[in-house]
Amino acid sequence: MSVDEFSLIDEYFAHRQHSRRDVELGIGDDGAILTPAAQHQLVVATDTLVEGVHFDRTTPPRALGHKVVAVNLSDLAAMGAEPCWLSLALTLPQIDHDWLTDFSSGFHEVSRYYGCTLVGGDTTKGPLTITVTAHGQLPNGRAITRHGAKAGDWIYLSGNVGDAGLGLAATQGRVQLPAAHLQRVVEKLHYPHPRVALGQSLRGIASAAIDISDGLLADLGHLLQRSQLAARIDLNELPLSLALTETVDTDTALRYGLTSGDDYELCFTVPEERRGMLDTALAHTAVKPICIGQVIGGRPGSMQLSLDGQAWQMPEQRGFNHFGDDHAVSE
Amino acid sequence: MSVDEFSLIDEYFAHRQHSRRDVELGIGDDGAILTPAAQHQLVVATDTLVEGVHFDRTTPPRALGHKVVAVNLSDLAAMGAEPCWLSLALTLPQIDHDWLTDFSSGFHEVSRYYGCTLVGGDTTKGPLTITVTAHGQLPNGRAITRHGAKAGDWIYLSGNVGDAGLGLAATQGRVQLPAAHLQRVVEKLHYPHPRVALGQSLRGIASAAIDISDGLLADLGHLLQRSQLAARIDLNELPLSLALTETVDTDTALRYGLTSGDDYELCFTVPEERRGMLDTALAHTAVKPICIGQVIGGRPGSMQLSLDGQAWQMPEQRGFNHFGDDHAVSE
Repeated sequence: MSVDEFSLIDEYFAHRQHSRRDVELGIGDDGAILTPAAQHQLVVATDTLVEGVHFDRTTPPRALGHKVVAVNLSDLAAMGAEPCWLSLALTLPQIDHDWLTDFSSGFHEVSRYYGCTLVGGDTTKGPLTITVTAHGQLPNGRAITRHGAKAGDWIYLSGNVGDAGLGLAATQGRVQLPAAHLQRVVEKLHYPHPRVALGQSLRGIASAAIDISDGLLADLGHLLQRSQLAARIDLNELPLSLALTETVDTDTALRYGLTSGDDYELCFTVPEERRGMLDTALAHTAVKPICIGQVIGGRPGSMQLSLDGQAWQMPEQRGFNHFGDDHAVSE
Repeated sequence: MSVDEFSLIDEYFAHRQHSRRDVELGIGDDGAILTPAAQHQLVVATDTLVEGVHFDRTTPPRALGHKVVAVNLSDLAAMGAEPCWLSLALTLPQIDHDWLTDFSSGFHEVSRYYGCTLVGGDTTKGPLTITVTAHGQLPNGRAITRHGAKAGDWIYLSGNVGDAGLGLAATQGRVQLPAAHLQRVVEKLHYPHPRVALGQSLRGIASAAIDISDGLLADLGHLLQRSQLAARIDLNELPLSLALTETVDTDTALRYGLTSGDDYELCFTVPEERRGMLDTALAHTAVKPICIGQVIGGRPGSMQLSLDGQAWQMPEQRGFNHFGDDHAVSE
């Protein structure tokens, strides 16, 4: 495999980009030249997917192309930014043209859907590792952070949690579920939908936000720690799919919903006085977030979980099975 | 190794950053929030170093931390941009605190020297792979590209070429050289100096520029191809170190200078009418570029090499030995 073969693969990426007027120069020089919007700030996020850790050889390459973009756009969404430009660092064990065709299709489809474009990157030989750096923009001072929550703010979740974790368990043969459910949860695992429009509509409404990549408890915990507050969560409000509740018992379903990762929903907090603004904003989005609890004083990052009005304790975990240590999914 | 251990390593990076006023929020949220300068454009470059391809286990971790920043800043320098913000995607086989201490020292030292700062990234478990995305800024319309060279422009090189290649050959035991030379060329291999100040001083003077990462012939070839032109190169002008000329014969020294990579000098073109501006600009830089030839019409990317007024043909390569296919160094 030569330098030329590696530069050949630029073909998969350089010639399939839609143009943005703010890209003066994209792939093909030492760097991209980009023109930021006046009076706007940049939001920059980076996520890496590693074979054997975040996915395995059964993961379709088109899904990988989709997912590595989607997880980064999810970070931008959590901050309220509009996605603009992507850089891709692709480390490949060999040049596999079928793989590249599928991977680049997934990559370009989701980029195009959300109006952002690949502007550069690097291709190297080595163990399969995929890093994307995503650049978004938003008007000055309008970014939503993790540290802005206040006691009394309501906690919302943008959609079902636990499905991607169930999808992972299903692809690993750890649970059995009917074909219709199976397809839906594996789709959710492989082709997550970052909440890009919702994130932007939450500017000036949400006091804090985070995306759920490592599981609701872990990620909401990060938000609470950065805000130096605690939370109470009403598990009766936790949005769970039929695929999940019809497949496993209630305790297990709740544990998936609370601890499994890769759902890429947004969790955000809204002050009481802005709930009306939220309702108005949501009239224009397809996503209907659910209120699952409230921010309270207490040990930073701690959470009180209740079910049917009773304190609920997570049952002992009956075993772990996951690609890597940072994507723990219990069953 | 758990999520917590991986987030612990943020300690090596988050608390050692110097602050820039344009970083509203750095490490610790879903993304960084950055405030671009008014009337400026962004330049974004990405480079990846992979163990077993770009370096091996004998490479000091401090050198890796330095080099992964330096190679990206070199790309920004080639476009005339001022370095501002860095993202780091670090994939590690395990948490090794000594390694992280050294790596982060190298990373921070070179970042601080050039006035840029780490604003975010991702840490994952897997085969050692290091990707940096560097963000620079420059006044609107002042970027230097690869495609702006015109026939008649003079071709300059910012410093010696071939030393890093000789350093690599020495660390691999393929050449022997005296201790003083050895230290110098290994230092050049491990701790390259990106030509950041020179790059910025070339704005409005150079018609095109590129940094030498893959070897002069390869990289000047890229510049010429993008500019749809050819070049004549006077090898008597090629800047070669004593370490190189005293270690190998002339033909071999020239081959190192022309084909070995990792020198990170700038190669740039200057129109005849701007040579005076160049002299003025160089009065303020420590680096003194050398004119090695001229852009001419001809097959795009082709080069005529001459030595002592005679056409010079590269001797047959007597063997290859390199980390990977994209860092070919002949001896």
